[in-house]
Parts: sequence; C-alpha cells; structure tokens
Amino acid sequence: MKLFSSVNDVTDVNALVKEALQLKQFPYAYKDLGENKTIALVFLNPSLRTRMSTQKAALNLGMNVMVLNIDKEGWALELRDGAIMNGNTVEHIREAAAVMGQYADIIGVRSFPGLKNREEDYSEMIFNKFVEFCGVPIVSLESATRHPLQSLADLVTIEELKTRARPKVVLTWAPHIKPLPQAVPNSFAEWMCKADVDFTIAHPKGYELCSDFTQGATITHNQEEAIADADFIYVKNWSAYEPYGKVFGGNEDWMLTNDRLKNTNKAKIMHCLPVRRNLELSDEILDGESSVVVHEAANRVWAAQAVLKRMLEGLS
Amino acid sequence: MKLFSSVNDVTDVNALVKEALQLKQFPYAYKDLGENKTIALVFLNPSLRTRMSTQKAALNLGMNVMVLNIDKEGWALELRDGAIMNGNTVEHIREAAAVMGQYADIIGVRSFPGLKNREEDYSEMIFNKFVEFCGVPIVSLESATRHPLQSLADLVTIEELKTRARPKVVLTWAPHIKPLPQAVPNSFAEWMCKADVDFTIAHPKGYELCSDFTQGATITHNQEEAIADADFIYVKNWSAYEPYGKVFGGNEDWMLTNDRLKNTNKAKIMHCLPVRRNLELSDEILDGESSVVVHEAANRVWAAQAVLKRMLEGLS
Amino acid sequence: MKLFSSVNDVTDVNALVKEALQLKQFPYAYKDLGENKTIALVFLNPSLRTRMSTQKAALNLGMNVMVLNIDKEGWALELRDGAIMNGNTVEHIREAAAVMGQYADIIGVRSFPGLKNREEDYSEMIFNKFVEFCGVPIVSLESATRHPLQSLADLVTIEELKTRARPKVVLTWAPHIKPLPQAVPNSFAEWMCKADVDFTIAHPKGYELCSDFTQGATITHNQEEAIADADFIYVKNWSAYEPYGKVFGGNEDWMLTNDRLKNTNKAKIMHCLPVRRNLELSDEILDGESSVVVHEAANRVWAAQAVLKRMLEGLS
Repeated sequence: MKLFSSVNDVTDVNALVKEALQLKQFPYAYKDLGENKTIALVFLNPSLRTRMSTQKAALNLGMNVMVLNIDKEGWALELRDGAIMNGNTVEHIREAAAVMGQYADIIGVRSFPGLKNREEDYSEMIFNKFVEFCGVPIVSLESATRHPLQSLADLVTIEELKTRARPKVVLTWAPHIKPLPQAVPNSFAEWMCKADVDFTIAHPKGYELCSDFTQGATITHNQEEAIADADFIYVKNWSAYEPYGKVFGGNEDWMLTNDRLKNTNKAKIMHCLPVRRNLELSDEILDGESSVVVHEAANRVWAAQAVLKRMLEGLS
Repeated sequence: MKLFSSVNDVTDVNALVKEALQLKQFPYAYKDLGENKTIALVFLNPSLRTRMSTQKAALNLGMNVMVLNIDKEGWALELRDGAIMNGNTVEHIREAAAVMGQYADIIGVRSFPGLKNREEDYSEMIFNKFVEFCGVPIVSLESATRHPLQSLADLVTIEELKTRARPKVVLTWAPHIKPLPQAVPNSFAEWMCKADVDFTIAHPKGYELCSDFTQGATITHNQEEAIADADFIYVKNWSAYEPYGKVFGGNEDWMLTNDRLKNTNKAKIMHCLPVRRNLELSDEILDGESSVVVHEAANRVWAAQAVLKRMLEGLS
Repeated sequence: MKLFSSVNDVTDVNALVKEALQLKQFPYAYKDLGENKTIALVFLNPSLRTRMSTQKAALNLGMNVMVLNIDKEGWALELRDGAIMNGNTVEHIREAAAVMGQYADIIGVRSFPGLKNREEDYSEMIFNKFVEFCGVPIVSLESATRHPLQSLADLVTIEELKTRARPKVVLTWAPHIKPLPQAVPNSFAEWMCKADVDFTIAHPKGYELCSDFTQGATITHNQEEAIADADFIYVKNWSAYEPYGKVFGGNEDWMLTNDRLKNTNKAKIMHCLPVRRNLELSDEILDGESSVVVHEAANRVWAAQAVLKRMLEGLS
C-alpha cells in the first residue's frame, strides 16, 4: 500500500478490518517489520487521537516516530504553483514534502479545509501535493474532505460490536455552534457504502453531503424515522456543502437523548471525538451504556496499525 | 503503585528514596520492565526539568514516550461537569483523559493553578479528573498544589549529601516579582514532615502555607534564626494562601547571601529551578560551592525512575 | 569530538566527509554505539531539515532523542551575566544548560542571531554559553554566525557529485525581501576554503561577508563572470555585515535563470533551503535537472550522523 487517503485505496475492506482486529489481539506480533523504519507525522492542525494512536501503532510495529507540528515548528508553507514568494510564506510545499520524504519511510499528514473555497478544499491541494512530491507512502491523518483512519476504526468498531450480520447504521447530523468540515461524515459515508451494512444518513434540509460519498445510502430529513431499529448511530455535525461551509442555525432538537433511543435496536452511539457535550451529544448518552465513543477511539490504534503494516510490507 | 500525587501515596518513603539511589547506580538494570509500555506526558503548562527527566527515566526503563502539549497541540479542554459546550472549549476532560488512557500504560500530567480561586485549585480539579477518567496509573508532573517528583528528588538529594544522621532542613521563602503557586513548598513540606529530618519553615508574616502540609514543622518569621546550624536550605518563593494568591511586596531582604550562611552547618542551598537570579537567589550563592541546585535537578531522573518502576511493576 | 560548531573543530575534513559517505551506504552499522545514549535537540527557532535529519541520524546510531522547543515549551531564558531577573526572563541560561547536560549525553542547539547588534551576534553568546555550562559534547544546529551541519552536508554533496578532481564552486548572493543571517554563507565559505575546491564568492557591492570566513576565496561583484565554468553554484541570500543586518534593495536580477547557466560546466545548483521560489531561485531551476537541493537536504542525515558518531566515540 502506497497511499491511504480514502476507501478507494483499499482493495479488500473486510480483509483490512480483520487484520486490524488481529493486531488488536497480538499488538507486537510484527515488531520486527518496522525496524529501522521511520514515520514522520506532520500536523498543520491540532490532533489528540490521531497523533497518539498513530504513534502507538507505529511503535507497536517497531518503527521510529518523528512528530512535526509544521505550522509551529517549521516554516510557513506556500502551496500555489508559480508563486513569487515575496510574502509571508517561507517554504514551498514542493521542497518541504520532497525533503521530508528523504528523512522518513512513511509520511502522515493532517490538514484541515479552509471552508471558504469548495473547489480548493475538494481538490485536496495540500494532501495531494504531499503525495505528489514526498516520494514515499503517505497516510492521511485527516485531510480537507476525508478522515480515513477514523472511518476504518469506525468500521472495526461496528464489526466488533454488531449483534446481527447486517447491522443498521445511521449517520445523523448534530447541532454545533461553528462551521465544521465535512471530512468525517464524507469519509464515514463512503466506507459504510462499501461495508456490509444497511446505511442511512439523516440531516436537516440544507446539509446534503456531496453525492460522491453517499451513493447507495438512504438519505432522510427525519431523524426519528432514520434511527428506528438502528444498531449503530454515528453522531456528527457538519457544515453545508452548498452554499459551502455555511450553517443555518436552529435544529438544536437534533441532539439525541436517551428517550429517542427507545425505538432503536439497543443502538450503540458513536462519535469521532472531540465532542461538545450537551450541544452535539447529551451527558446522559455520553455517560450512559449506549455510548461506545471511547472504545471507538481506542480502535484508532488498530486501524492505523493495519494500514502501517501494509505500507511497511510494501517497502522494498 | 497506581497514583503518585503526594507523599501520602507512598507506603515507605525511605524505601522509595533508596530505590532511586540504586537506580542512579544502575540506570539500565530494569530496561526490560518497560518493553512495549508507553507513557504519555501531558503538559498544560511549560516544563523543562520535569519534561526531560521523566522522559529520560522512562527511556532508562525501556518505555516508549509520547509527549503532548495538550494546550497547543490538542484541543481546549472543558472541565466543568454538566457544561453546555457552546463556548471556546472543544473537548471535555472526561473524553480526553479516557481516550489517552487507551493509548498509554501510564500517564503523567502537569497543570498549574489559576491562583484566583483557592477552593478550585485546592480541589485539584484538573489532576483529579485525569485520575478519575483515564483508567491507568497516573503520575503528577506538578499539579495545582503539589510537585511530588520534585520533592522526592529533593529528599534523595538530602539523603545523598547529608553529613549527619538527622540533618536540619530549612524551607525559606524568597522574594519574587509575581505571584507563584504554593505547589513546591506545600509538597516539600509534606515530604520533609515524613522524613527523618529536623524541619523548619521560615517566611515573612502573611505567607503561611496551608497547615495540611506543614504539620510537625517548626514555623518562624525569622530567617536568620531559622537557618542557624542548618544543613540544607531550600529556597523558594510562593504567594499567600490567605488572601489567596496575593503578594504583599517588600521583603527583598529575604534573598540569601553568602554572608548569611556563616552560622549554618555549611548548608547546601537547594532550589527546584527555574530560579530568578539576584531576586530569589544571588549569583554568589548559585555560582558558589554551597549550591547544589544542578545536582538536585539531576536527581529528578532517579526520582521519576523509581516511581515509574513501581508503576510498571504494578501493571498486570 | 566534544564540539562541532565550525570547520575549525574538525581535524581532518576529508576524513569526516568520507565517513559521512560510508554511513550513507551502511546507515545502521553503528547502531550499538548509541545504546542508552540520549541527545537533546534544543530549538530557540524553527527548523525542519535540521530537526528531522539530526533526529534520523541519532536514531540510526541507536540513540534516544528528546526534542525541546525551549522558546515555547520551556522558560524564557536570561542570557546576561549579573542580571537582576525581575523582568520577563524566568530562567538563566547557566542553569538551563547545566541541567540539560545532566539529562543528555549530547546536546544540539539552534539559535538565530538578532541581526541588531553585530558584536553580540558574532560573540555567539547563546551558543557559547551552552558550551560553557552544559558540560557535555555539543553540536550546533545553526548558531548566530555558522551552520556547520549544513556546510558538511554541502561538502558531502559536492564530493559525491563532482565530475572533476578540483571542482569550481561558486557561492552567489540572491535576492530576498527581508534581512537574513550570514550563518549559512559564512559557514559555507569557511568550509569551502578548507576543501579541495576552486572557490569564488559573488555578491552585489555592500554584501561583503566578514573576512574571517572568506580567506582564500576569490570575491567578485560580477555574477556572470563568477559562474563561468562552475561545477556547483550555491545560491543564498544574506544581509550586510556592514552596516550590520541591513539590506539595500534592488539586485533582483541576481536571481539565476537557466539561460545564465549556459556558460557553466553543467553546474549543479545548491541551496540550504527553505528557498523562496521566484525570488531567490526560479521555478525553472528548482524544477529542472540542474537542481540538487533535495539531494543536498537528504545528505544532512549523513553529515549529522558522522558528527554524532564521533561524539559518541568520544564519550567515556
């Protein structure tokens, strides 16, 4: 595996999920694989789970880890081709990526969208320039439009906890106070559409996701209907795709409560975290028995480890 | 050992000091103990000695280390239970701590007091919430009211350098220009009260420490009397406990000079560092023969290593 | 080797270059050498290449690495002897350096010049105080007036890629929009003056470097003449030495283009990076076949590894 940025980079999704679950049982079974191999984790934005779980995954495989908060510890990056760099940017991403590829065997990159220019964000300019210029296998630590390590961990969690062969999985929009990226819901949707689940998306009118990610899903504006008989409810806020990055206010009643879960199939509540309590999700759910958000976060290690294992196996 | 936040978490203080001194002789004797174990060092505030010495201690034990400057690299933490998180905080400490406990076998946390609200600071809200929610052994890297790894290193230093069985140890207030926490003096006091030393505290009127920490100490407002015949003088500024966090100005003459040390028993001068030269302590003392501040800082490694060793031994 | 801050710290430059090239062939041949040894990389300024390549070099030698962004993660440093520290600085460099020397077997330090006070910058106050007080071998990660790991990597690159026994090497000034340090050109000049190359420096009038570094070089204000028949052209901006830290504007035509390279001996273009595209160097050169800037950056690992290897061999 040379690239992990989307479900489309995975030939056999089920096999990858199985591998993650095997690594969870035997975390150190492949510790020789990463000997003398180094991963550079490059952050242009904050990170807790991704930062720590990917480090742990690499360490479990015997790798060295170098963390670079490039926005703070390195140089301000220029992204535009042909730019005359007489402003505030100090280094072009062409050099930065190429040089990092000389020091690391695998690179991970996190870069959030600006939410101002849809075309730019959806072109995945930053991530794709890293891919183009770094010359080594590269894993997304969340990019402008996708968060694939999160989605793989989500699917691992569903596989682990499901109580019937083809569970009903619902992605529901939740309230927030500021415009959030579409990366997590896009990514979750495209993974669920390829997984052996019955998949529904519920959101208020206006929050339609880009259809590239949701092909095959049932889409509804009625949360109550959507979650009926659900096995898993994935809660997440996102801003509008059209008009891009906008939020419309209202819809506070989309925050789930225990009462609303009565008609589900003892649904497990999932969230990628961080979660704003009592805005996106109520205390009673997060502190109750239906929440699996910490378990889900723990699975980030095994998702990352499965991906890094395949990348290591692909190195000459 | 599951918790190291105070002298009260230690069954046998002398045995722990001895263990630290043995580790100083044989730093790598327990390198297998930490294999495949990871410590996460979580900082909400700056740190030099604690950061580096705890890393070194963990590496000596064969552990992996993950450092997280959570205030800069992660998400703004919400602490209040029941909060509706529609403000600036992005993640609740409940989730943050629980998730970190999934990625690390041991967690270290540094968090300074606000010095605004005594009840809040002395409730150790941040540290205790980490304890409550992380689910793994946890070591204080300095909390609002205590700095136990510092105090253990201090006691190790006294044990190493003492020239009589029961040395006289004096904690003396020193001048500063801004209000400092009471964590270091509190902690030093509670450790000295349990150690086999003759312990005196000297400070100007108004700087009384909370009596919970000073039970058994001789307390005086006369520095000259206090340090007579002293073997060790621990110099430190702190702000008032009542009114909380206040400083009263004046007392610049509490800065020690070589001249004042004449009536001591060739006293060794200690300080936790960082120290403001020529304000808290004079150049002549810091650069002279009586200062052991660097030696004391070096002992931070062995103090941390003794604590981490016990925590590793306690892991299943 | 106890100190690596300048070419003058190296007895046999050719032997060190050869060692670097051997390490490039067998990166892990000395992995036992660094067992239980720790390097602390201390940054007072941003860094990408130096940060990552020195980490990688240390890891290749089996060392532990601790990175400290002391300006952000530690305490504000006081540099002046005798200062009464009642201002914004929290810790004196005397204590900071001495303490770090207790936790690390080797220390690396990066500290840029202020470009305000030439005497202060050229006294290398910060770096030299680390040397004076840390008590362990110390390597410059770029100081106020030199960048020796860069220069060694540059010489390694020239040795690797040269097509005749005594290549012509030209250091040429290039345009920029802000005043840059003289560290890289100073350092490159002093290394080239000791290497077996024909060395020329070209710059506009007013940008004369301090003659301590350029003894033996041909110096000219005519770039075209300078680069005729050149094998290597090292491109770099710097501010004036006299009046110190000034820039005079103009000279935009000093940016190289492919057209100007016609009279060279198929010159390879070098730059320490980061480079401002289309200001210091044109896209057509950086993206063309003559550029070796990424190759040169990759060699930073082997330069650092050769130096660290010698320091490790010198430890008791």
